Amino acid sequence: MKINLALVGFGRVGRAFVRLVGEKRGFCREVYGLDLDLRAVFNSRGAFFLEDERDFARLSSGSPVRPGRRGFWKPGLTLGEASRVWGRGPGVLVECTPTDIRDGEPGLGHMRLAMKNRWHVAAASKGALVLHFGSLMDTAERNGVRLKFSAAAAAALPGLDVGCHSLAGSEILGIEGILTGTANFILDGMERGASFGDALREAQSLGIAEPDPSLDVDGWDTACKILLISNAAAGTHFTLKDVRREGISHVSEKDFARARESGRVLKLLGRMTRNRGGCRARVGVEAIEKTHPLSTVSGTGKAVTFITDAMGSITVSGGNSSPRATAAALLKDIINIFRG
Amino acid sequence: MKINLALVGFGRVGRAFVRLVGEKRGFCREVYGLDLDLRAVFNSRGAFFLEDERDFARLSSGSPVRPGRRGFWKPGLTLGEASRVWGRGPGVLVECTPTDIRDGEPGLGHMRLAMKNRWHVAAASKGALVLHFGSLMDTAERNGVRLKFSAAAAAALPGLDVGCHSLAGSEILGIEGILTGTANFILDGMERGASFGDALREAQSLGIAEPDPSLDVDGWDTACKILLISNAAAGTHFTLKDVRREGISHVSEKDFARARESGRVLKLLGRMTRNRGGCRARVGVEAIEKTHPLSTVSGTGKAVTFITDAMGSITVSGGNSSPRATAAALLKDIINIFRG
Repeated sequence: MKINLALVGFGRVGRAFVRLVGEKRGFCREVYGLDLDLRAVFNSRGAFFLEDERDFARLSSGSPVRPGRRGFWKPGLTLGEASRVWGRGPGVLVECTPTDIRDGEPGLGHMRLAMKNRWHVAAASKGALVLHFGSLMDTAERNGVRLKFSAAAAAALPGLDVGCHSLAGSEILGIEGILTGTANFILDGMERGASFGDALREAQSLGIAEPDPSLDVDGWDTACKILLISNAAAGTHFTLKDVRREGISHVSEKDFARARESGRVLKLLGRMTRNRGGCRARVGVEAIEKTHPLSTVSGTGKAVTFITDAMGSITVSGGNSSPRATAAALLKDIINIFRG
Repeated sequence: MKINLALVGFGRVGRAFVRLVGEKRGFCREVYGLDLDLRAVFNSRGAFFLEDERDFARLSSGSPVRPGRRGFWKPGLTLGEASRVWGRGPGVLVECTPTDIRDGEPGLGHMRLAMKNRWHVAAASKGALVLHFGSLMDTAERNGVRLKFSAAAAAALPGLDVGCHSLAGSEILGIEGILTGTANFILDGMERGASFGDALREAQSLGIAEPDPSLDVDGWDTACKILLISNAAAGTHFTLKDVRREGISHVSEKDFARARESGRVLKLLGRMTRNRGGCRARVGVEAIEKTHPLSTVSGTGKAVTFITDAMGSITVSGGNSSPRATAAALLKDIINIFRG
């Protein structure tokens, strides 16, 4: 089956996605019978259409694509105007624009447009989903398409898959996760005695933390991810303002010492709890026992535990946090849309 | 959608399955739109058909079903003769007979019969699958049905789901798993200084090990599970005789001491390795580093790690090993057949 792909966003993840498609096209044809055809790539300055293998080779080699430089470059063309993309046959919009948690744009517009055109969506950006989860899922259902977002929920860590697929039939009583590798890395450094500022600067110097680290260190990133996993797997209806949230910058040496004395370790957890009063989500630093399955998650690691009524507790951990691994999560979602 | 179910095998897992269906029918209707209808239960002495809610209530309450006791009991009736079961509409055979790794019966006959009748299969028994994996999967494909076996591969631990679903598009370079809770429990006891015999007897007295423990302690159970996970997720073609296998009874105090000295811990691992010469599977006790994600699996715990080319390493751990949790894995497979 031929699958048309359009990519929006050509930053680190978008570029990694193009390279991965180049590397995996043969494998996907052979193993899944899917013929991935990247038709167009959009960024904020325009669009480029891929006409043949040479275009793909140039694009995936990482050579810079500049306005006016190549015949297939259409400066200023937006996704909405690109009627050539919405051709016949099944298609997937791959959404890799930067996450904006204030208005969800530009991802929100892209996703709606794609689904209106009966294209499926695989998203790495979180903003639109954490602000308009219910309405976007409704749009998907109304148009008979799938909206997948593994890459937004935790890159290669398959928290969504385990929650939505492996626990089918069981009720999810709680979820707890270490979902932001950057925050976990900084807490590790503070545990070893560094100040918050020093640990953050180390993370920034290694390219782990962004120059503006607030999404990660103020708990926003974890809040987005626990929301997405909980809404998708446990049927909750959180939007971002429902998630109680604190970050890691206020944690003191004394807090670490107190945790150590009681044989515990401090972790930034995203947590969903279900009780008679309903479901709640929160993000905060907690002292957890060393026997807790999340206590051994170190460095930029991630993990999530589901507590269920019929299967017990199940934890999934690992998965790289690189652009390549995020691209692999997008590719997985695309394959699973068509494998049924 | 109404889903007909026929259960074969009415031991601990079969009974737990009936109870779970009773408990979850409303949930499955509401959340997945699936109306589970248990039509018949077979054991080695005959069949009983469920005509109405009272039959179901009696069956799921655990009251013993004896030949001649109830009107709906058909002594001596086999699955093959039960043409009433293979009615219209989608159906799933739930295979819970004891595992026999010599000839795979009676599960083999049941699965083939069901698939020939265009019923899907959810299996908890391993024998037929580890002896005839390829041929059974071919039969499923030829008849347009699904053959699912999460419950056979590791009860509630979703190793198969992660391997088959969450890693789609990535190449699996290796798999390593602690897949037999009983063996892990006994090794834990030996680590604390007990002899193999004493640790085994403790496991038996707690109902963890079978009176004949050879499947677990000689590595057969782990061999079956690594085979199923590898064949299903990594496309290998192992049969049971391809898996090099050793158990845990030979491990000495000296082995534990040597492991401790080098900061390692002994675990019975099932392992698949892929290299240029192809894929190999083996089961044996290995000394693993304390930083290894499987090193913290204690007691009757289970876990499996996948090493991939594009996503890094991903580990899934936990899930109860009870009959109820195995039944929950069967229910999950049934739901996912129709959600697909």
